[in-house]
Amino acid sequence: MKFARYGDRGAEKPALVDGDGNLRDLSGHVPDIGGEMLSRLEALKGIDPESLPLVAGEPRLGACVGQIGKFICIGLNYADHAEESGMDVPPEPLIFAKYTSAICGPNDPILIPRGAEKTDWEVELAVVIGRPAKYVSEAEAMEHVAGFCLANDVSERAFQTERSGQWVKGKSCDNFGPTGPWLVTPDELGDIDALPMWLDVNGTRMQSGSTATMVYKVPFLISYLSHFFTLEPGDIISTGTPPGVGMGMKPPRYLKAGDVVELGIEGLGTQRQLCVADD
Amino acid sequence: MKFARYGDRGAEKPALVDGDGNLRDLSGHVPDIGGEMLSRLEALKGIDPESLPLVAGEPRLGACVGQIGKFICIGLNYADHAEESGMDVPPEPLIFAKYTSAICGPNDPILIPRGAEKTDWEVELAVVIGRPAKYVSEAEAMEHVAGFCLANDVSERAFQTERSGQWVKGKSCDNFGPTGPWLVTPDELGDIDALPMWLDVNGTRMQSGSTATMVYKVPFLISYLSHFFTLEPGDIISTGTPPGVGMGMKPPRYLKAGDVVELGIEGLGTQRQLCVADD
Repeated sequence: MKFARYGDRGAEKPALVDGDGNLRDLSGHVPDIGGEMLSRLEALKGIDPESLPLVAGEPRLGACVGQIGKFICIGLNYADHAEESGMDVPPEPLIFAKYTSAICGPNDPILIPRGAEKTDWEVELAVVIGRPAKYVSEAEAMEHVAGFCLANDVSERAFQTERSGQWVKGKSCDNFGPTGPWLVTPDELGDIDALPMWLDVNGTRMQSGSTATMVYKVPFLISYLSHFFTLEPGDIISTGTPPGVGMGMKPPRYLKAGDVVELGIEGLGTQRQLCVADD
Repeated sequence: MKFARYGDRGAEKPALVDGDGNLRDLSGHVPDIGGEMLSRLEALKGIDPESLPLVAGEPRLGACVGQIGKFICIGLNYADHAEESGMDVPPEPLIFAKYTSAICGPNDPILIPRGAEKTDWEVELAVVIGRPAKYVSEAEAMEHVAGFCLANDVSERAFQTERSGQWVKGKSCDNFGPTGPWLVTPDELGDIDALPMWLDVNGTRMQSGSTATMVYKVPFLISYLSHFFTLEPGDIISTGTPPGVGMGMKPPRYLKAGDVVELGIEGLGTQRQLCVADD
C-alpha cells in the first residue's frame, strides 16, 4: 500500500494512493497517517480503493507522515559519499538530528535561509517506524517498520560545520526536510537493498546511486538506534546519501534562488523543489 | 503565574500552582499547558485560583510543558564549565539537540541505559517559547517567551563523545530530559540573569552557580536561534550548565543505579531523581 497526506500545511488529510496513482481520501477511516495508527496499516488492506472518495484536482502534498517525533539522520553511510566529503565511514553509525520543524511536503520550496552560503542537497531513503522499538535485535528490527519514503536532507554546509559545531544547526532550517510523496509499506516496496536513487539540479544529474552501497543497513540501524533511545511510531530514520552532493564537487556547487531540485528513489516516487530566498 | 502538569505519563492534566504551592486543576479552562495556548497565558491571569479544583494527594508531575517540538540545548555556555570540560567557549552559541522522547517529569527516575559508562548531570535554566519567532532581534526576543523552567540535561558522556560524533546520541536516552516542576511566567520570575542554581548527588553539593555567569544570554540566544529556524510555541531552549559536572571532576564521578540527584534554580522549584538501571 501507498499512503499520502494532502492539503494545506498543518491541516493535511490522509489518503491512499490507488493503482492508477490517484489519491483516495482516507479521512473516513483514519484521522491521519501518523502516530499510533502506523502500527495498524495492515488493517487498511481490506479497503477497496474504489470505495474511497477520489481527491479532486492536484492538491499540495504534505509530508507523507504526520506527528513525527524524531527525525534521525545517519551521516556518511555510503562509502563513496564519505570519500567525497573527505571523511572516513565511522566505525559505528553517526547519528545527527534534524529538528522536526524543518519537515515539509515533497514539492514545497527549499527556503534558502538568510546568510546561507552553501545550501546543498542529499537524496535519501527514509524508514518510518510503526511500533515502539527498544533494545531490539537486528532479527526483530523490521517488525517495527511501518514503511519507507523519499527524503531530501537539505543542508547548509556553512551553518553545519563552520558555525561552532554540531550539525543540527545546518540541518534544521525551515523546509530543509521534504518528506514523501508516499509512505510505502515494506511488502509493496520489495528489496530495500537495491533501490536506484537519483537527484537532478536544473535538469543535470548530480546524484546517481543505489541503496546497494549503503554501509550500515536498515535492520542494523534500527537495532543500533534502539539501544540509545526508544524508537516510537512516526519516528523517521533517514539513512544517508550516495555521492554527488554539491559540497563534493570541484569546485563545489551550491543551491541559489531559482534552482530546481528533482529527486527520486525507485518505488518511492519523486520530489520537485524550487529554491526560494527566505528573506 | 506558575503552571504544572500532573498525572500519568502521556495523560497529564494542566494545573495552576497557587500561592500556597498547591496544584489547582485547569482542565476546565485549557486542554494542556503546551502548543499554541502558550501565547495566551496572560488570559489566565484573571482566574481566581480558589475557584479551581484543588488536586488531591501527591500525583506524579509530568514535564511542565506538553507538545514540545524542539528541545534545543546550548553547549559550553558558562565560561567556567567550558574550562572544566577542557574546551573553549565557542565564538558563537553551540547548539545541540535532545530528542523530545527523552523528556520526562521532574521527579521521574534517571534511567541508566544499557552499556552506559559515564552518565552525568547538568542543572540548566530552560526557556519556553510562547510565540513563533523567526529572524527576531534581541530587542524583540523576550516577547516570544512564555516562561522559564528547570531542566536536568542528563548526558551519557561516552555515548556523547566516544561513539562516532554528534552529541545527540548521548543526550537523548529515555528520561534524559527531566523538565519542570513548573513553567513560571517572566513577570513572576523576575531577573533571569541572577538566579542561583545548584545540584546535589546523594546529598553532596556538586554544582553551585548562577545564571549571572552565562555567556550568551537569553535574548541573544532567541534572536540567534531564530535566524536558523522558526522557534515555535512549546519549543524549549536549555541554556547550558555551570561548573560541577561529573566529567569535570578529578577523578570523574558518574551516576550509577541507586544514586539520588537533586537540583534547583531559585524561583523555578526543585527536581529529585533516583537513578535506575534500564536493563
